[in-house]
Amino acid sequence: MSKRILRVDMTKLEAKFEDLPADFVALGGRALTSTIVAKEVDPLCHPLGPNNKLVFAPGLVTGTKAPTSGRISVGAKSPLTGGIKEANAGTSFSQKLARMRIAAIVVEGQQKDHYHLLKVTMDGVEFMDAQKWFGKGLYGVYKDLFKEFGDKVGICATGIAGELMGAASGVCFNDPEGLPSRYAGRGGLGAVMASKGLKFIIVDETGAPGVEIKNQEAFDMGVKKLRDALTTHDVTKPGGALNSYGTSVLVNIINEAGGLPQRNFSAGQDDQSEKVSGEVKADEIKKRGGARPHFCSPGCIIQCSEVWTKPGGKEPVGVLEYESVWALGPNCGIYDLDTIGELNRACNDLGLDTIEAGGLLGVAMEGGLIDFGDGKDALKLMDEIKNKTPTGRILANGAAFVGQAYGVTRVPVVKGQSLPAYDPRAIKGIGVTYATTTQGADHTAGYAIATEILGVGGTADPKDTKKAELSRNLQVATAAVDSTGYCLFIAFAILDIAEGLEGVVDTLNGVLGTNLTVNDVPGYGQSIIDTEREFNKAAGFTNKHDRLPEFFLKEPLPPGNDVFGVTDEELDKVWGG
Amino acid sequence: MSKRILRVDMTKLEAKFEDLPADFVALGGRALTSTIVAKEVDPLCHPLGPNNKLVFAPGLVTGTKAPTSGRISVGAKSPLTGGIKEANAGTSFSQKLARMRIAAIVVEGQQKDHYHLLKVTMDGVEFMDAQKWFGKGLYGVYKDLFKEFGDKVGICATGIAGELMGAASGVCFNDPEGLPSRYAGRGGLGAVMASKGLKFIIVDETGAPGVEIKNQEAFDMGVKKLRDALTTHDVTKPGGALNSYGTSVLVNIINEAGGLPQRNFSAGQDDQSEKVSGEVKADEIKKRGGARPHFCSPGCIIQCSEVWTKPGGKEPVGVLEYESVWALGPNCGIYDLDTIGELNRACNDLGLDTIEAGGLLGVAMEGGLIDFGDGKDALKLMDEIKNKTPTGRILANGAAFVGQAYGVTRVPVVKGQSLPAYDPRAIKGIGVTYATTTQGADHTAGYAIATEILGVGGTADPKDTKKAELSRNLQVATAAVDSTGYCLFIAFAILDIAEGLEGVVDTLNGVLGTNLTVNDVPGYGQSIIDTEREFNKAAGFTNKHDRLPEFFLKEPLPPGNDVFGVTDEELDKVWGG
Repeated sequence: MSKRILRVDMTKLEAKFEDLPADFVALGGRALTSTIVAKEVDPLCHPLGPNNKLVFAPGLVTGTKAPTSGRISVGAKSPLTGGIKEANAGTSFSQKLARMRIAAIVVEGQQKDHYHLLKVTMDGVEFMDAQKWFGKGLYGVYKDLFKEFGDKVGICATGIAGELMGAASGVCFNDPEGLPSRYAGRGGLGAVMASKGLKFIIVDETGAPGVEIKNQEAFDMGVKKLRDALTTHDVTKPGGALNSYGTSVLVNIINEAGGLPQRNFSAGQDDQSEKVSGEVKADEIKKRGGARPHFCSPGCIIQCSEVWTKPGGKEPVGVLEYESVWALGPNCGIYDLDTIGELNRACNDLGLDTIEAGGLLGVAMEGGLIDFGDGKDALKLMDEIKNKTPTGRILANGAAFVGQAYGVTRVPVVKGQSLPAYDPRAIKGIGVTYATTTQGADHTAGYAIATEILGVGGTADPKDTKKAELSRNLQVATAAVDSTGYCLFIAFAILDIAEGLEGVVDTLNGVLGTNLTVNDVPGYGQSIIDTEREFNKAAGFTNKHDRLPEFFLKEPLPPGNDVFGVTDEELDKVWGG
Repeated sequence: MSKRILRVDMTKLEAKFEDLPADFVALGGRALTSTIVAKEVDPLCHPLGPNNKLVFAPGLVTGTKAPTSGRISVGAKSPLTGGIKEANAGTSFSQKLARMRIAAIVVEGQQKDHYHLLKVTMDGVEFMDAQKWFGKGLYGVYKDLFKEFGDKVGICATGIAGELMGAASGVCFNDPEGLPSRYAGRGGLGAVMASKGLKFIIVDETGAPGVEIKNQEAFDMGVKKLRDALTTHDVTKPGGALNSYGTSVLVNIINEAGGLPQRNFSAGQDDQSEKVSGEVKADEIKKRGGARPHFCSPGCIIQCSEVWTKPGGKEPVGVLEYESVWALGPNCGIYDLDTIGELNRACNDLGLDTIEAGGLLGVAMEGGLIDFGDGKDALKLMDEIKNKTPTGRILANGAAFVGQAYGVTRVPVVKGQSLPAYDPRAIKGIGVTYATTTQGADHTAGYAIATEILGVGGTADPKDTKKAELSRNLQVATAAVDSTGYCLFIAFAILDIAEGLEGVVDTLNGVLGTNLTVNDVPGYGQSIIDTEREFNKAAGFTNKHDRLPEFFLKEPLPPGNDVFGVTDEELDKVWGG
């Protein structure tokens, strides 16, 4: 059985399997979603109309025993940025699809005012009425669905924020506990899914043949090399930084560097940040009986995830990632993990991107809706979304939208998308990535923090404004990694350990039966970015959109009191503009 | 006394007069606002931040006895389109500025959370506290201000919609009765004014020297030629179409052509439209004791204006223009002049652009907030703005914003600005103008209706999709007219009567002491458009923004059942892209 594309027509409620075209065989994850979106979607179509398409694709090695490779990419034209979007998540949902030899699901057309779920099994595809879950929180819905479809299915969903067609909505996947906590969060793809009338995809892999491996020897050798690298590197090894404290290990580090944005990017450091650090959180989880370390999808070595709960181990939330803790915490002047946990739970329940949620709350606080630091009122704003009030509709559309509604001019977005947890005035390279990626402000697109702060892949002075080359190299490598199905966090190991990178390429050769070398990686990554940039250009983007908002260039950031300072020329050097 | 620029720093609450630079001497109106904005405003600045500038400029012959020349241009970076904006209005305010030899007022900086008024006299400039008028409707406020500053001043204001920083807000000027009914409405310039902390400008021309005329003979000759043309042409002459019925004479004509958009651009014709026609309105005004014909500023020959009132001549609104009647009427499924009058009054009172208001109401109706045709509920939505509720904040930001908040995909905007009263599927040339003007959808930027429907300046089949040349020629000519201070409606006469155009050029030569000929007009207009396009390019606009929304290309418009059908190549031919 060769790899297939499942094409879903929501207008007609029909679906069919197509053979994966020969020229798509070496494409997975982001390479495949971006290629299909670029090929099939009119860049000037309305992102919430029938002519946008929502594409799901597991990575090339996803579903195999390659470690830490359970990522799924979701792509479409973004209602948040207006450009091409790829967001990815780690979830068994992806592994199931891959083992069923489904290279991609392409959802097209539109079913208005009535929601369906799509059940995908080896026997075929079924549309079922999903109207009864309309307007319901995803924690409860996921419980219902697992009861109805069995514990072993994978579930993808759009939530209430998606029903609102909110540009801050994400696409939700299940974690190993069945919680709705793994998100392809960014860019409003939950709204694209909802606009199609598609509420859930349920995947049951019973009888799946598994991923075909064309060169088992190469594959096994690759797995071993990568495993060795991951279990050796200080950031990724068992008992290492990510395993012990999760991504929140960054809280103290970035705060110390003066680059942890506080209260809607008005300062880069606050003594209280330590209260929400990864170290404090890991202690708390141990005390109250959550889980840590923990994987987001089976087969992960790094295991940076966790299950955060209320005291006593009650009401599990799922992971509190660094970005979420920061967005819903210091960026809102909130320094209390339980409040952050409740806000994160609300986001998961509503189908909201946590970064965009923190961004929009920060702007709402600046706009005077509620006070900085008021977690209770922040939770009330989440209820406005749940209740679909006019205020909820404003909030569900993200930080830029809230900024316009309330006349706020300090709005930290690029291409309409909220900035993540690193202030570009204190750490310049990540700012170059925010500005120049095809995705809107996105740290994962070219994680310069690795080099600028963590000393991974070499070192670079965070204050040095010459960062075009660093950002470009990382963006290109990332595009390649995002296509493999490997978690981006393997990059910590493979940037420093050459055999690890070789191992990645070996596993790709194993799956594809190819003879790629590490020298082929940059070209592969660049071609993805070229495809995405071509789409964005046709959607009306120019280098003038590869800029940070004005206030980063004019307002100094305490305590370092820097402005961004990277020239437009340096930004344009990233893609040779 | 030579012509001056009044530069107002709202950060420091300081103002100073500067001599008009030598290279600006031949610039007035739109030529001057666009030149100053392009020269002094960073195209990537936040439109509501301290670095945007709001520029007011009367036209070159404004304040003289040249007929129908009382226009004022207002320019800035637009919070609605993100590009350069010039909106203009006919008002004695402009004539007063011109006679004080103030070529432009440039408002810069920002005063946060406190509103001031600026009083401008021949003795100098004074800032006064305006906080007591915060949140008040402009009909009452204008009464107060005329009482406080005397009947003979001119008043410019931003209203509640501006206070909300709403992108649908306009800049208001007084009409001859002192009503707040003459608007430089488009593009959210009321919000720019409010963002500066500037609530009103009061102009008292006592002691003004008048406009300097360098060649009285040329000027007088020009006035005569233009007067002859205006009093001869069927559209502009006393007792002609505009004089008898106002701009609403178009209702029946455009409805007949199948191009009068009904219910958010879902049809192009409705039998009920006749109930809100100019003919019916003129009869009603006569019955109830309003005024018609009427001028918007002294010295107008055409006198297309009027004073609409409640029955019995009570509660005067001011003019109900064709665009306003359509926007608040048929576009909302409303076919009752009294309801339309009340909605128009609400817009004037709030400081809202009537076209954008009709556009946003149509989208709100499509989004299910209220029903099409429900005027009472439409008035309640206006109250939401007045009360500054969350719904009001959504509405005050215009049709595109409402569309995003409510997940509506049929959103008739170009560059974020609502389409005026001609469906481009039925009348192609005006669609070419909507798409390609620097201003966002704007009929006045190149009024192809004149030729396509009215047979002025030649004839053209409205269904013919080859309209690049027609639109370009009109856009270029319009840019020139918008700089003279003449009302665009003189174009009806001067497009058909060569001596009229000569008269216009003669009056310019009279004021400037130049030897321009009619052959200089296109170059003058083109240079303004070049300046504006350069700004927009630097703000990130490309030919991909010179497009109509997707639905005009896909959804046929009853009853003609055409789609737009003008190719991208034809659109790009307008500016040689």
